[in-house]
This record gives sequence, C-alpha cells and structure tokens, in this order.
Amino acid sequence: MSPTRKLPVAILGATGAVGQRFVQLLADHPWFEIAVLTGSDRSIGKPYGEVARWILNDPIPDAIAEMVVQPTDEVADVPIAFSALPTENAQESEPQWAAGGVVVCSNASSFRMDPLVPLLIPEVNPEHIALIEHQQRQRNWRGAIVTNPNCATITLVMALKPLHDAYGVRHFFTTTLQAISGAGYPGVASLDILDNIVPNIGNGGEEAKIETEPLKLLGTFADGAIQPAEIGISAQVTRVPVIDGHTATVAVELAAKASPGEAIATLSEFRAPPVVRGLPSAPARPIVVRAEADRPQPRRDRDLYGGMGTTVGRVRPCNLLDLRFVVLSHNTIRGAAGGAVLNAELLVAEGVVG
Amino acid sequence: MSPTRKLPVAILGATGAVGQRFVQLLADHPWFEIAVLTGSDRSIGKPYGEVARWILNDPIPDAIAEMVVQPTDEVADVPIAFSALPTENAQESEPQWAAGGVVVCSNASSFRMDPLVPLLIPEVNPEHIALIEHQQRQRNWRGAIVTNPNCATITLVMALKPLHDAYGVRHFFTTTLQAISGAGYPGVASLDILDNIVPNIGNGGEEAKIETEPLKLLGTFADGAIQPAEIGISAQVTRVPVIDGHTATVAVELAAKASPGEAIATLSEFRAPPVVRGLPSAPARPIVVRAEADRPQPRRDRDLYGGMGTTVGRVRPCNLLDLRFVVLSHNTIRGAAGGAVLNAELLVAEGVVG
Amino acid sequence: MSPTRKLPVAILGATGAVGQRFVQLLADHPWFEIAVLTGSDRSIGKPYGEVARWILNDPIPDAIAEMVVQPTDEVADVPIAFSALPTENAQESEPQWAAGGVVVCSNASSFRMDPLVPLLIPEVNPEHIALIEHQQRQRNWRGAIVTNPNCATITLVMALKPLHDAYGVRHFFTTTLQAISGAGYPGVASLDILDNIVPNIGNGGEEAKIETEPLKLLGTFADGAIQPAEIGISAQVTRVPVIDGHTATVAVELAAKASPGEAIATLSEFRAPPVVRGLPSAPARPIVVRAEADRPQPRRDRDLYGGMGTTVGRVRPCNLLDLRFVVLSHNTIRGAAGGAVLNAELLVAEGVVG
Amino acid sequence: MSPTRKLPVAILGATGAVGQRFVQLLADHPWFEIAVLTGSDRSIGKPYGEVARWILNDPIPDAIAEMVVQPTDEVADVPIAFSALPTENAQESEPQWAAGGVVVCSNASSFRMDPLVPLLIPEVNPEHIALIEHQQRQRNWRGAIVTNPNCATITLVMALKPLHDAYGVRHFFTTTLQAISGAGYPGVASLDILDNIVPNIGNGGEEAKIETEPLKLLGTFADGAIQPAEIGISAQVTRVPVIDGHTATVAVELAAKASPGEAIATLSEFRAPPVVRGLPSAPARPIVVRAEADRPQPRRDRDLYGGMGTTVGRVRPCNLLDLRFVVLSHNTIRGAAGGAVLNAELLVAEGVVG
Repeated sequence: MSPTRKLPVAILGATGAVGQRFVQLLADHPWFEIAVLTGSDRSIGKPYGEVARWILNDPIPDAIAEMVVQPTDEVADVPIAFSALPTENAQESEPQWAAGGVVVCSNASSFRMDPLVPLLIPEVNPEHIALIEHQQRQRNWRGAIVTNPNCATITLVMALKPLHDAYGVRHFFTTTLQAISGAGYPGVASLDILDNIVPNIGNGGEEAKIETEPLKLLGTFADGAIQPAEIGISAQVTRVPVIDGHTATVAVELAAKASPGEAIATLSEFRAPPVVRGLPSAPARPIVVRAEADRPQPRRDRDLYGGMGTTVGRVRPCNLLDLRFVVLSHNTIRGAAGGAVLNAELLVAEGVVG
Repeated sequence: MSPTRKLPVAILGATGAVGQRFVQLLADHPWFEIAVLTGSDRSIGKPYGEVARWILNDPIPDAIAEMVVQPTDEVADVPIAFSALPTENAQESEPQWAAGGVVVCSNASSFRMDPLVPLLIPEVNPEHIALIEHQQRQRNWRGAIVTNPNCATITLVMALKPLHDAYGVRHFFTTTLQAISGAGYPGVASLDILDNIVPNIGNGGEEAKIETEPLKLLGTFADGAIQPAEIGISAQVTRVPVIDGHTATVAVELAAKASPGEAIATLSEFRAPPVVRGLPSAPARPIVVRAEADRPQPRRDRDLYGGMGTTVGRVRPCNLLDLRFVVLSHNTIRGAAGGAVLNAELLVAEGVVG
Repeated sequence: MSPTRKLPVAILGATGAVGQRFVQLLADHPWFEIAVLTGSDRSIGKPYGEVARWILNDPIPDAIAEMVVQPTDEVADVPIAFSALPTENAQESEPQWAAGGVVVCSNASSFRMDPLVPLLIPEVNPEHIALIEHQQRQRNWRGAIVTNPNCATITLVMALKPLHDAYGVRHFFTTTLQAISGAGYPGVASLDILDNIVPNIGNGGEEAKIETEPLKLLGTFADGAIQPAEIGISAQVTRVPVIDGHTATVAVELAAKASPGEAIATLSEFRAPPVVRGLPSAPARPIVVRAEADRPQPRRDRDLYGGMGTTVGRVRPCNLLDLRFVVLSHNTIRGAAGGAVLNAELLVAEGVVG
Repeated sequence: MSPTRKLPVAILGATGAVGQRFVQLLADHPWFEIAVLTGSDRSIGKPYGEVARWILNDPIPDAIAEMVVQPTDEVADVPIAFSALPTENAQESEPQWAAGGVVVCSNASSFRMDPLVPLLIPEVNPEHIALIEHQQRQRNWRGAIVTNPNCATITLVMALKPLHDAYGVRHFFTTTLQAISGAGYPGVASLDILDNIVPNIGNGGEEAKIETEPLKLLGTFADGAIQPAEIGISAQVTRVPVIDGHTATVAVELAAKASPGEAIATLSEFRAPPVVRGLPSAPARPIVVRAEADRPQPRRDRDLYGGMGTTVGRVRPCNLLDLRFVVLSHNTIRGAAGGAVLNAELLVAEGVVG
C-alpha cells in the first residue's frame, strides 16, 4: 500500500504562497520526492531559492533552494503533480499534464465543480475517486485531475460530515472569519487589515464556493456521477487580522434531532476509513472537540496534528434551528497544500497512481 | 425645548473605560456640564486626573482632571447622572440615585430588562419613555432609571428597526465580530487576541443579551407596559483584534418580502422622529448604506457622525431566508456612552427632566 | 499676509496615499482651493472618486470625487502645486511645473538635497526660503521647487532644533519605529508585518536620508547657499505594526551641557517665528513634552494638533552621551502632506507666491 | 556526563507564563522529570490543569495537568528546582530551597547581581559556575542559586560575546523592540498595544538591567569573584505588538577595529565550549547571521533551533562608532525558561548536581 520507493513529484506554480507550503510539506515526505518545480516566465531557469520570495517561518530546504525552476507548459515525466497554479493557468495547464499521464492533485478552483473531477477530502468522500476512471475514459487522459476544496469549505465540511451521516444536515448558516494567508502573498495590504475587518472576499466568489462545494463533497457517487447532497447553505465571509487559521460559526438544522451531547459524541468518535487512517499526512483524529467555552481559537488550535486537524467548540443548542458550533482548521495546510498531499497519498494507497 | 442654562450632571463610575467616554463626550456638551465624578474607594477624595488611567486618545480636559472624585453612595444634587457602573454596583446604587430625585441614564445591564425601565434608543423607541411615570409611581421615586442597550444589540437593532416597521422581521441569525474596547480596560489581554479570535464573550452572556434586548426595544408600549416583539434570534459572538467598532453579519426572514433594492431604500430613508433629529448628539442620518462590496469596515466606518452613525453594507438576497447584510457601529460611543447621552438629551427635550 | 481670495492649487500624483492626504487637508483649506488633480495614464480623464482607491477613514469630499483627473505633464495655470509624485516622476515633472511658473511644494525626495532647493520646515529654517530667488535665477524658472523632509527626519529635527540652538548638537544615535502608512498603499503586505517587525526600510535608503537631511535643515543660509550643520548621525530604522505615527529613540551629545530639566524647558518653550505661528496649519505649539513615563505613543499622540504636533517624552540622562529621549509625530500629516501645506502657507505669508 | 536516570525536578511558580514554558520544555526532557509543581495559595491542592490558565499553543501534557499543585514554601526532595517566581517571592523562597539542598535555576531577577550567584549563559560564561562553591560555603547552603539574565540582556550578550572576545567591546547603544509575552499573562492590555508602541518597560527598570547584567556576564572570574567587564551601555526599550521575540538594534565601539565582514565571520564561527555543545537544549549553533537586508524578524526567526538560537542581521559600519547590527532571540525560551533549562543541563554535565 505504501510505495516501495519514493515517487518523484512536480509542484506547479511552486513560487507562490501555496507552492511554498507544498515545498515545506513535501521536502521530507516519506512517499514523495520533489523532482520538478515550475514557475512563471520570470522564474524559469533560475534557482528556486532566488525567485521564491519565501514567506514561511521555516527556512527553505537547501536542496530545494538550488533546484532550477521549469516551465509549467512542459509536462514532466512524473506520476504526480501538485498544482498551486492561479485559476486561469490551472484551467489551461492541468488538462495538459493529465493528458500527458500525470495525476494532478490540484488546489486550484478551476475544475472543482467539473462533474468528472473528484472534489476530494479523504476522511469525507474517498469513494469519489471512482470518478477518475470515467474522467480518464471520457477525456481520453492517461493521467487525471483530482481537486481539494476551498479552504473555508473544508473547515466546514469536516465538521458537517459526521453530523450529516448521523442526523442528516438540512441547511446551515455560517459566518467565516478568514486568515490573511488565504489571500496569498503579498495579498492583503496591512493598511486594509490592521485594526480592521473586511466583510467580503473575492467579491462574493468565496461565498459562492462555500455554498456549492459542500453539496458535491457530501454527495453520493453512483453510475459514474456525483448526485449532490440536498442541503441549503447561507454563507457570509469576512477577512480578519489573523495570520493562519479559518474560523467559522455554524447554525444547522438536522433531519433527525440531536442534543449537543449527542453531536459532541458523534464528532469526537468520527474516524476516517481504515485506508485513510494510515496515510502519512492523516491527522490522528479528524476532529477534536474542545470543552472550553472559548475555543477554538486560530493561534492556539490551527497547528493541531501538524495543521491537518479540525477543532470544534461551543457545541450548543440553537434558538432557531438545532445546533450551533464553531469550527476551525489551518487554511494553508488542511485547507490547501496539506489537503492536496493527503489526496495524493490516498490515490497511491488505493493504487490509482504509483 | 433645549435648556436655557447648562444642566449639572454626575458621572457614576467615571474612572473606567466607559466613564472616560462620558467625560470626553460631556466635556464640551452644549446642554450639560460635568458637576460630579464618582469612583471607587481607592479614588475618592483624589483628583480625577490622578486616579483615572486615561486610555482615550484625546487628552483629559484640564478642568475635569482637577475635579475631586466623590463616593458613589452619596446622591448628589443634580438632575441627571450618567452611569458607567459595573453591573453589581449599578444594581445597588442606581435605585438610590433615582430615589434621590436624579434621572439616571445608565449603560449598565442591571435594569435593562426591568419591565418598568425604558431600554431606549431615541431613533427606535422614543415612545417607551412613557414608562417613566409608571416607574416613578410604582417605585415611589422622584428620579428614574433609563437604560441603553448592549453595544452589539444597538448595532443590530438600528438596522432592524426600519426593516421591522416596513416588512416585519420574523427571525434572524447574526454573528458578531466585536472590538476589544467592549471589554473595558485592561480588558482583553494582548496575548489572547493578537493574531487570534476568541469565539465567546461573557461565557454566553453577551449572546443572551443580543437574543433578548431587541424584543423589548422593538416592542410596543401599551397600558404602562412593553409588549415584546415576536422575533426569533440566534446570535454567535466573537472577539476580534479591532480597537473600536462592532461588526455583525445578519441573515433575516421578513413577513412581507423585500428585494435588496427595497431594503436599501428603506434603510437609507429611515429618519428619527422630529424631536430626536435636533438633539445635539443625534447623527445627521441614523443609517448610511454603503454601496461598496467591502464595507462596512470598523476602522473606516466607526467614526461616522462622531461615532453615532450606523453603517450597513452588502445588502443582498439570502439563499435560505430573505436578506443578508453587514452592519457596524462604534461600540463605546453609539453603543455605550454616546447612546446614554442621546437618551438624556431626549429626556430633556421631552421635558422629563431639566 | 493671508490671501484675499482662495488660491487655486494643483495636486500632482493625487490618487496615491500621500495624494489623498493632500486632498483631505486641502478640501476645506481657508487659503487654497483644489483646482487640478493629476494622475497616471490609467486615471486621466476619469473622475477622481472612481480611480482613487480611497484609504483614509474620512470619506472623499463629494466635490473632489467628481473632478476629472488631468495628466501630470501638462502644466496647469495655478500659482501652487503640491507634489505627491513618486521619485522618478517628480524628477522629471516638477522642474516642468517650476519652469511653467508654478511654485511646487513637493513631498518627493528627488530635489531635497539640491543645493538650490529649500528643504523646509517652517518652525525650523524659514530663512532658507531665501534660496528661492537664487534657484529661479540660476534655473531660469518663474516658479520654484520647495521640499519637505523625509517623514522620519522631520520627527527628529523638530526636537533637535531647539536643543541645537540652545546647546549645540554634536552627534546623535537614533532608532526609528516607523508606521506602515509610510510605505504608501498597498505598501507593506500584512503577512510581512502582523506579529512582526521588519528591521529595514528601502534597503538602507531611509537611513541615508535620516543621516543627511538634518544637516541641511539645521544648516545656515549665507551668500545664496546652505552651509550644512556639522552633526554626526547614526540611524537604524524599523517598520512596526502601527498604522500612523513614527516613533524614534534618540541619544544625543551636546556641545554645552544641559540637564534633562533644562532640555525639557527648552523643548517646551520652543516657538516658531511669528510669521509661522499664525499660519492655518501651524500647530498651537511645535513641541509638547509629556511627563508620563510611557509616552509618546503613536496611537495616543499622533493626532496632536490635527497631526501637526510633535510629542517628546522620557527626556533623561544618557549613560554615554548627554541626553536621551523619545520623539513622535504623524508621518503622513506632519511628515508628508501637512508639512508641504504648511510650507506653502509660509510662502504665501512671505509673499513668495500668491 | 549525562545522567543515567531522569532527575526529578520542581517548578516553582508553575502556573504563570514562564512556569508554563518550563512545563512545556521539561515535559519530554531527556534528563529531567517534572516531580513537583508549586503555586500560590489559591492553587495549592488543586490539579495543575485546573488552576493554570494555559496560554501556550501546544496543549498541557495530560500527566502534568493532573499533578496537584504544592506550596512553594515547602522545600521538596529534588536535586533541581526551576524558579519562575515573581521577584519578591523569589527573594524569599529561593534561599530556602537552596538551604534545603536544592540547586535552584532561577529566571527571577532577585539574585542576578548577587556577587556570589552565577548569572549564567552556558555559551558565554560557563566558567562562572565556579562561584557556586563560594556561594555554598559562605551561605552555608547544600544547594545553590544560579540565575539566567533578563530576556533582552541575553539577546544582546549572545551577539556581543564573540565580538568582545575578538575585538573588545568598549561601549554600545541599543534600542530594543520587545514582545508582549515578556510581560507575562495577562500582562500587556490589548488596548495599550494594538496599533501602538509603548516606549518604556518597568518604568526604567528594564533598561537598568540591560545596562548592568552584561557587565557581569562578560566579566572574568578570579579569586572567588566576578570582575565586571568595563563596557559602557546605553539602552532604550520599547514594547511592540509582537507575540514572541525580542529585537534589538545595536551600535558598538570596539577596541580593535573590525570590518563588517570580519564581524560576520566572528559571529558565524562562534561556538560554545565542547561541554555545552552536547547539551540537550543547546542550539546547533549559538548564532546565525542572515545575509538578507530585512532580517532578523521576530515571527520568522524566533523559533530557530527550538527558540534557543540567536539571529543577527544587517551587520554594517556605523557612522559614529564601529559597527551596527540587529539581533533577535525568543524571549520566553532562550530568554527565560529555555535559558534556565540549559543552565541546569550544564550543571549536571559539570557534575555540580545530579
């Protein structure tokens, strides 16, 4: 199940904020070895360490810093590519890599809602990888594209999955408080966010993703297609002066009633399928429920299980619906690069690639 | 209607954060003159400038700094007192001052839900001051107690009032992002809030206020009592690293449907009753609706009309209910000291005191 | 001495951060009236309110928002222009406007050290305006260029001027803690400065300005030239997560000894020359010395006298030199647009223009 | 040299901010095992997890959370105690523990300047532990007190030590930008530091420590006493909105001239004595010199070598003295609990205890 030798991988769009997270998470990965880094025209042919304006706190690994950046439009001979490309570039380049035989684990939004592309969270909908063979057949690709959801979506869906399985989620209201790292680098100007809140992201686009992606993620696979879940969602997003970690308040209506105590038990006992549990990047437990009245908090909970854990708190009744709670996870690890790496690990474990 | 000479006023609990705002707002007030400042035992008999750890950006007015702090338990001979007392102290002292003939305009929560005490926002429910004569009769007080709502409540109710009048508010969900100044001084520890969010205030107590006070504020006065409005409210509160200005997201269901355009018109055209419009602290317009996609923002909108204005933005449809929007106002001016001063002005204009 | 009618003025580079401060300070100016706003190619021909991404907390004045942006390379028929141009553009455009008969009050660094251009702080070296006639003669200009110093320089020199006059400043060490607004907009990325300090600005360029400009400012005018002061300066700059207000620590050696008490008296009693005192933008007193042990602080002292005041604190002996102190002023008002406006007011009062 | 079994240790004043860091650093220490936690009266007899308001991002280790808090005034039967006591408590309790046979590694300032107490940084002055036998003899103690310096002092001295050895430090000017965690918890109020700087710490007391402790640290041990180094120091301190990591600018005069290149080599090549290099908490290298123009930065450099490293940057000439640079280290790890733990490790390795 685990590969006998390290698989060479490419990182597409490696110089940006999410690309750097890929480099960080893959530099010492037990299954993968960074073989190719691609970048924009101004970077091609230059050492990665020179062209990446490194913003993470851990230093660039020396060996990676010396790697020469390659063009994104030349498909490399690797089984797996991680894509941190901007939307438009992903739209164009990811199909080329898939056609060239590479399984692309993409953080871009371009193909998330494509009916033939799995939108994947290993703990939530691993069975959706069955879409891949349909994708390959219909697109005539030897490789494939697999995507991970928007960083706020994944925070929410991780907590909603066990509730949906146990009680049926009918609809929910959410307000998110999203970290500045979600906007990349340079991203949010300090003059816009110090002593301030910005009550919108992507001019409504972020809310649209949060209102649609969960339906696919919690949908059922049958006959080569995903039947979306029937859940009503109302999302309002804000940007807050926090470096990493998206927080969301949730008020949810369930088909079958559940007390806060039952919901806490359901969330705490949630486990990934066995194949997922042993993956190198899988968190020890998908969800930790905190009993304290003032958790989760981004600075104190975002690094749970190396940034791959999800923390829930304040599970309590709702005056209008059934339950309310607060949920948090690390937006650039669980919500971006780490999510894509876990997806790739699942594909290897399931024999889709490797 | 406006007083012919300045009325002497007392500030109860003058050394704390809200007490200082009262000092700031009253130092040059056209109708009122600070005559008495009361404080805790350690302050009594000392100059205000020595015992108040002044935290506002404007300096203490010199004349005020030299005033000697008085005990709170000796009722002074003034027509009006502004109370910034902590809850327990307010519980005990405010009735003494009311019994002693003083009209207490209180920012404390102690008597907000007392059925004989007006919970007052001049633009919203000025007719509730009719409660005062019942209060005076039943309590046998020559003075009275009048309260202003919780700082997050007032932000919300200001925007809900015109919608309720025009379309009927059935229920709403709100998540608040509240400024640190709401916790007073020293209040929130910097280690708790820098690069962080705290998803609770007062261990649920703040949410309880937001879920009950609006029913009284939007209720109707008849036969000496307030009949509370029938509105369902679900509130989730958070503390954010912002100095001043509470922001709230709202999703609301209305009895009569309204498009975003109609709601924007209703909010923009909302005006206070004539008697309120001319008050010294009344904002030029109660509500300003911003058309930009990224407003309101606390740093950029909190000082509207000297901190007495309310800003609404992102009025748009809701997937699940009727409308969504974001609303903001200054929590220690509109939401505390400024609100109490405007209440006092109304009482003078209506001849209740002065 | 004050103009009988308002003088029409141009703002060059009006859409940026400093340009916006000019708009704010000039919108209701008693002597000046904004007649022309210039901008870059993408802005020309469009309403100012559409192309300026307004970042100040006060709203754009309506009348200004509707003004159509003009090209910078067409000299307008105005007596005065305020320049917020970037260095390279200033290098090229300001001489054109000066040649065209306009007195350019510039915030750009391009000509600050030009031996024929006054580097001017009205309270410090008003006699340097005598350079203008030499400048006009030698450059054959009908107009002129007058500059204000770097935003950190002015903070320091304002405090050093009275000490230099009274005791002679021999050399000083300074470390600055500079606000993010000094970098313009978008300027400093929030990911670079939240929970962080950056110990450099402009790759040493800021320090070079602080180490040279004071010599000219404190120099003496004689025979058509400025003889620079002989002062040794060592500056180290840092960027801190503060919105507005530059703070500097200073350790200074004096030619004639002065106790802290004497220095405090000298600083507190410092007054601008009579012609400066009555100018509309002149602070009531150039310097306020705070006695508290923890002042000056940017958030609490930057707005002194509308942002035109300078606050000094912690005047005390130095173990190694004579005195130490901390000084602060508002970097985009006193240190940029406000400084240039005060310069223009002095030129009008002295009959150089108008 | 390393102990054959884990040594039981006490943490005095374990519930506060530094006490928590001790718990974190000792929970999995290879040589030490937490045996006793002491606290104030309100904590005694209760589980540590209940009484410590845990502020670190890593959770409390479960086993520690269940330990019952002991009184500080009962000396426990352990070879080593780590003291995070407040100054006054340390003054009284530490001698009791030392008299009772315990070697107290203290972070308190009470005995730092005591002529018989080593003020110790293992990489800097390990030979000062020879003071211990004199201390024991003269005080008639079986145990001893050993202290680590103030958190800003250690940042500075780590960089000055190799320069002093190689070139002789004559005097230096420093301005520090200190993190909020240095004030403990709750410590700095958020209303005092958000969008702000406070230019003083401890009303001059912090500066006094920085101006005296280095003389002892860089002094020479002879005849049972420390002969202080002859260095002139002028320090100005500020508090900045940074969570962890003290930054200092330094301008230094040397007895023997050194170019920036020579100083960089001296700093980079600096190594601890062999006995120190192998200690569990010793950083791989004491000092890392960064070549980038904008380092060190607290958020990006404080965690170097688990928070035990020191980062130097911007080594360059000084206009007035010889060299300037910026230095940074983690104030609550290297500058407090981690420093004390490293001290204890040295004492074990040298056979003083264990």
